[in-house]
Amino acid sequence: MAGNDILTIIAVLKAKTGQREALRSALKALLLPTRAEPGCVDYALFQLTDEPDTFYVRESWRGQAALDAHVALPHFQAFAKNMDALLAEPLKLVRLTPVDA
Amino acid sequence: MAGNDILTIIAVLKAKTGQREALRSALKALLLPTRAEPGCVDYALFQLTDEPDTFYVRESWRGQAALDAHVALPHFQAFAKNMDALLAEPLKLVRLTPVDA
Repeated sequence: MAGNDILTIIAVLKAKTGQREALRSALKALLLPTRAEPGCVDYALFQLTDEPDTFYVRESWRGQAALDAHVALPHFQAFAKNMDALLAEPLKLVRLTPVDA
Repeated sequence: MAGNDILTIIAVLKAKTGQREALRSALKALLLPTRAEPGCVDYALFQLTDEPDTFYVRESWRGQAALDAHVALPHFQAFAKNMDALLAEPLKLVRLTPVDA
């Protein structure tokens, strides 16, 4: 795909035992500053109804450069520093290719 | 949640070996008739970029009743009849609870 195409991903984050609410708070804190980034098209947080230790972040970005910029910003870096304490397994990124009608 | 709240799910569908394009076509055929259903808020199809045999359908419905109505309609029933031939494992529904900022 071209560098400026919209990049759509789901980030999957599973909390360590006992860290569910701490992870939820840390993810909530990312929502507003991330949505204010110029390269962010969509950034929405969900908790799996049947597996509440697991969270999905639905993200769309104005290309890989926008995602690269996001992970370098202070609000994401602050979150990244806590990932080892909060996550039961490494953050997983599921990259999605849209299929149109 | 109340019966009329928006219900957001991801349907996960993995193609049998050799059935990827057939599954893709069958899922594409659902997009327009499903979006025309009065209970459908969002219905978007994606292929996993790094696991192209797997498709996600991002769905939002005006409550469980709207989803129940959807699976009873002819376009979904036609798809359901082919699921055994197309899918490597049973369709999985991931129910998502939104977390707001």
